[in-house]
Amino acid sequence: MEEATVVSQEMFTINNLWIMLAATLVFIMHLGFACVEAGFVQKKNVVNILFKNTLIPCIGLLTYAIVGFNLMYPGVDYGGGFLGFAGFGINMPEGSAGLIDYAGGNYTYYTDFIFQGMFAATCATIVSGAVAERMKLMPFLIFTTLFVSLCYPITGMWQWGGGWLKTAGFHDFAGSTLVHSVGGWGALAGAILLGARKGKFTDKGIKPIPGHSMPLATIGVFLLWFGWYGFNGGSVLSADAGGVSLVFVTTTLGAVSGALLAFFVSYFMFKSYDLSMILNGILGGLVGITAGADVITPMESIMIGGIAGAIIPLSVVMFDKLKIDDPVGATSVHLVCGIWGTLATGIFGEDKSIVAQLTGIAAIGVFSFGFAFLIFTILKYTTGIRVPDEDEERGLDISEHEMEAYRMS
Amino acid sequence: MEEATVVSQEMFTINNLWIMLAATLVFIMHLGFACVEAGFVQKKNVVNILFKNTLIPCIGLLTYAIVGFNLMYPGVDYGGGFLGFAGFGINMPEGSAGLIDYAGGNYTYYTDFIFQGMFAATCATIVSGAVAERMKLMPFLIFTTLFVSLCYPITGMWQWGGGWLKTAGFHDFAGSTLVHSVGGWGALAGAILLGARKGKFTDKGIKPIPGHSMPLATIGVFLLWFGWYGFNGGSVLSADAGGVSLVFVTTTLGAVSGALLAFFVSYFMFKSYDLSMILNGILGGLVGITAGADVITPMESIMIGGIAGAIIPLSVVMFDKLKIDDPVGATSVHLVCGIWGTLATGIFGEDKSIVAQLTGIAAIGVFSFGFAFLIFTILKYTTGIRVPDEDEERGLDISEHEMEAYRMS
Amino acid sequence: MEEATVVSQEMFTINNLWIMLAATLVFIMHLGFACVEAGFVQKKNVVNILFKNTLIPCIGLLTYAIVGFNLMYPGVDYGGGFLGFAGFGINMPEGSAGLIDYAGGNYTYYTDFIFQGMFAATCATIVSGAVAERMKLMPFLIFTTLFVSLCYPITGMWQWGGGWLKTAGFHDFAGSTLVHSVGGWGALAGAILLGARKGKFTDKGIKPIPGHSMPLATIGVFLLWFGWYGFNGGSVLSADAGGVSLVFVTTTLGAVSGALLAFFVSYFMFKSYDLSMILNGILGGLVGITAGADVITPMESIMIGGIAGAIIPLSVVMFDKLKIDDPVGATSVHLVCGIWGTLATGIFGEDKSIVAQLTGIAAIGVFSFGFAFLIFTILKYTTGIRVPDEDEERGLDISEHEMEAYRMS
Repeated sequence: MEEATVVSQEMFTINNLWIMLAATLVFIMHLGFACVEAGFVQKKNVVNILFKNTLIPCIGLLTYAIVGFNLMYPGVDYGGGFLGFAGFGINMPEGSAGLIDYAGGNYTYYTDFIFQGMFAATCATIVSGAVAERMKLMPFLIFTTLFVSLCYPITGMWQWGGGWLKTAGFHDFAGSTLVHSVGGWGALAGAILLGARKGKFTDKGIKPIPGHSMPLATIGVFLLWFGWYGFNGGSVLSADAGGVSLVFVTTTLGAVSGALLAFFVSYFMFKSYDLSMILNGILGGLVGITAGADVITPMESIMIGGIAGAIIPLSVVMFDKLKIDDPVGATSVHLVCGIWGTLATGIFGEDKSIVAQLTGIAAIGVFSFGFAFLIFTILKYTTGIRVPDEDEERGLDISEHEMEAYRMS
Repeated sequence: MEEATVVSQEMFTINNLWIMLAATLVFIMHLGFACVEAGFVQKKNVVNILFKNTLIPCIGLLTYAIVGFNLMYPGVDYGGGFLGFAGFGINMPEGSAGLIDYAGGNYTYYTDFIFQGMFAATCATIVSGAVAERMKLMPFLIFTTLFVSLCYPITGMWQWGGGWLKTAGFHDFAGSTLVHSVGGWGALAGAILLGARKGKFTDKGIKPIPGHSMPLATIGVFLLWFGWYGFNGGSVLSADAGGVSLVFVTTTLGAVSGALLAFFVSYFMFKSYDLSMILNGILGGLVGITAGADVITPMESIMIGGIAGAIIPLSVVMFDKLKIDDPVGATSVHLVCGIWGTLATGIFGEDKSIVAQLTGIAAIGVFSFGFAFLIFTILKYTTGIRVPDEDEERGLDISEHEMEAYRMS
Repeated sequence: MEEATVVSQEMFTINNLWIMLAATLVFIMHLGFACVEAGFVQKKNVVNILFKNTLIPCIGLLTYAIVGFNLMYPGVDYGGGFLGFAGFGINMPEGSAGLIDYAGGNYTYYTDFIFQGMFAATCATIVSGAVAERMKLMPFLIFTTLFVSLCYPITGMWQWGGGWLKTAGFHDFAGSTLVHSVGGWGALAGAILLGARKGKFTDKGIKPIPGHSMPLATIGVFLLWFGWYGFNGGSVLSADAGGVSLVFVTTTLGAVSGALLAFFVSYFMFKSYDLSMILNGILGGLVGITAGADVITPMESIMIGGIAGAIIPLSVVMFDKLKIDDPVGATSVHLVCGIWGTLATGIFGEDKSIVAQLTGIAAIGVFSFGFAFLIFTILKYTTGIRVPDEDEERGLDISEHEMEAYRMS
């Protein structure tokens, strides 16, 4: 919705192609989330996670087409605002010269929708992992629908839709806060209101409940890393060679040093080579680098990603101490590392303001945690949100789906 | 083989890059098919499915290089015809100004071959799932070789090679009929001639035979969806920003509403949250949208994909009632939704003719079902097509491959 | 570091975009390697393989940023040399006009780093499979760090960095020798020094130790094939339509005929339909085609890939006869087919010299095998390289990681 700049038809086509490919890469992150979360839960709850993570992008994309996109990008008139709405459905904004004369000549209206739509569903997916193994299916789907169609686009509009946070100087390049922390706050609200899984926190201490498939979790993490090149690289919003290639390097080095620091810190803490820690270290590094991937140097990306990786084992222990049960570590990865990455952008990014970063973190945190807490609470006292103990015991696959994930005998 | 238009070297390079990337995305659909089909069969037949689905793209691509490509695109002289052949091997057609002055300046001859070749093998893969768990390996490979090197390119030529169906006004953008229904007709012929798996249809009713791994099936469906952006998006045959981005949106919304309608209808029919139904709902939506993805609006894509998703549980029940046993639901997904999508293009697409659509559906159905039925029948009375009962009982992995898919103890 | 040529801003952006996408495709090969190797080992060593194959790209990319890139591409002054170093860290070489006026106008400095960095880690990954199921974790990580940060970039510089092999007329387009054989020589050194797994070679003959998951191995092979379009296609170092599309075709036909010949030869040798042979046949075909993918015809690629595929079962039997135990067949795929592909380029490639090809094969073989043998030997007599027998018996997942890959009960 900026003034159309003049680029050649060739440059327009290249820019548009890259954003479409980036959307395709972000799409595969949904499979990444499904695999990570399925791998990290017990065998008896795998169908349930897969069912949720298959429906979430479907719900997310459909509601984004109907309301989300137009809540998040309400158009020029809402500059500096808190809330705006451009009407229902996918319709080109008034004043556009046409499908291809949109957004300053870098991509079409449809490309804009598909790239932003692929982003939207990720925040609900983050919640899915944290509430796994004990939440009822239908209230989760109701929560997802509201969270992705209202909460995400409203806070997203504050920054990417040209709202008040952008005016305030907040910088969140590809969504450490706008996507990952929003999902992380939802995850935290859900984990608190649901309570821990039976048998996790006992009088004798904390009982680890290991995931059922490390190959599945590893596939998921690599697919997320793969898709992150579209998530961060596409957020340049053009195929600009200098901009996108810097983002590729900072994103890569963030992931890499996240893994290595998670490896060292977890070895120092637990004296073991813990695969789940390096997998979450990669994700933590990626989340951490996402806010500032466009404004930092490669060397700084090693530091930011490394600190994010070091945070992972510390944060997992902290949530365990707080008796907040998150089966896949989603709050550590997406919430804690999301906050760190947003802060780090204020520290390392040139001309960035730590005050503005803290303002954004706090405002979006209050709104999204509050929104999620409210919805989960309403659901808790209406439909109920937690399955009966006997259903939790035999697993949601049987109790909710009458299916088993594997038939290996 | 159209007249060369004048585009800049830059635009030519962009268009060519996109078609090569689209080919790469279609390639990964073969892994998607392998995973879906392996996930939906019993553990004892997994190596067999993987073996077939690994060899199919190899056979498909090699035969396409030798005969298929030149049967499907025989060149200008065969306009309006039923059959043509431009000779064996990958050789540039006469009259081309050279490798890069081909097809109106949008891509090279080699790019054309690789994109079309990746398509070709998919129709044999569709058959693979429907005949799973009871068909002998060698006759299946013979069938595949003939089906992909003769049947697919001949019917494909009728439309995409400039043949009589194109002249008749038939519209099938990316192959709801030319690819998916052709595979679906082959699947139906095979399933009928083989008969049902032992124990599927008994005096006491229909016994469901659940697949052995839902994570594998889910990975497969997401990879297919991922690859479909190349399948449909590449079928624009250039990187044209307006055209490709519309196709991305209609393809996405088709998949999404396919999943949601399959979810609602299957819940209404069976009162359960059936993961395999929403997975096949996604595939049904994608197949349904493929014929008209370039000529419909986003809102129409929601309708077309939704109806395709609703068809899935109904069609699965119908084939069960007809005692046609298709272990992975390939006929419902590819044949029934392929027909629906082709019809829907006549209903929703501007200036499209329902009569022409029905003509194409019928002509291609008769030819490809007849072709497949004939080959399967010849094989039945020569090599035999069905494994002995005791081999079916202990599984094809042991009887055909002397291997087990998993060693988990 | 060539003279900057003048291309348009559009062409620069297209070329750069393709190399970034190619890097993304090469990235996913690391997941491919992880899946193949995990699938082909026993269940009790799966976490160990995943741990190694997750850390390897992290170590590889970080060390490449610190030393490897500047050892491999030391700049103009080292033309024709054996060793050079452009200093630590990612810093643009002096004399560059800037980030985007680099490498003759085809891509940015950062893009160059990320594409080459993704390549670097693959050779250490190749070693990982050959030493699986019996090597200690820490010495392996030390070996990896040295191999990827010193051995790979030094031999790489001899050719791709403008060193003496390039001057000598050696041709290795995308690394049959520079990447795959280097990894293969490391694998061979490790397999020899470690000795075979307990129970593999007994008085009663050779006992096959089958992998634990064929679906995982199949996923890995398809992902490697998928990523190879970036590995070979990106090695054109621009989006040149004619060049890249030829490489796509030769790469594809190499893989395809590798699979089919491995199928026929292994059926002839063993009278069985062995899935692992066709999977390794695909990889052998891809490795074989990699040295000359840019200078051969499609018909020649069918021959080269086919011979590589035929080599696979023969080579596997040969290493078994030599009592060299390689659990995943890495030496057959990467070393033997890498040598074959490099030789084949001398045979089929126009104006290529078989003497130069043999020189490159021998020089790089001597250096990389010697380097790996030396490091493994030092480690053997310091940290030790082999786990105790009882740890090998119960598996490295428990002894090294205190984790199980699966919890299926």
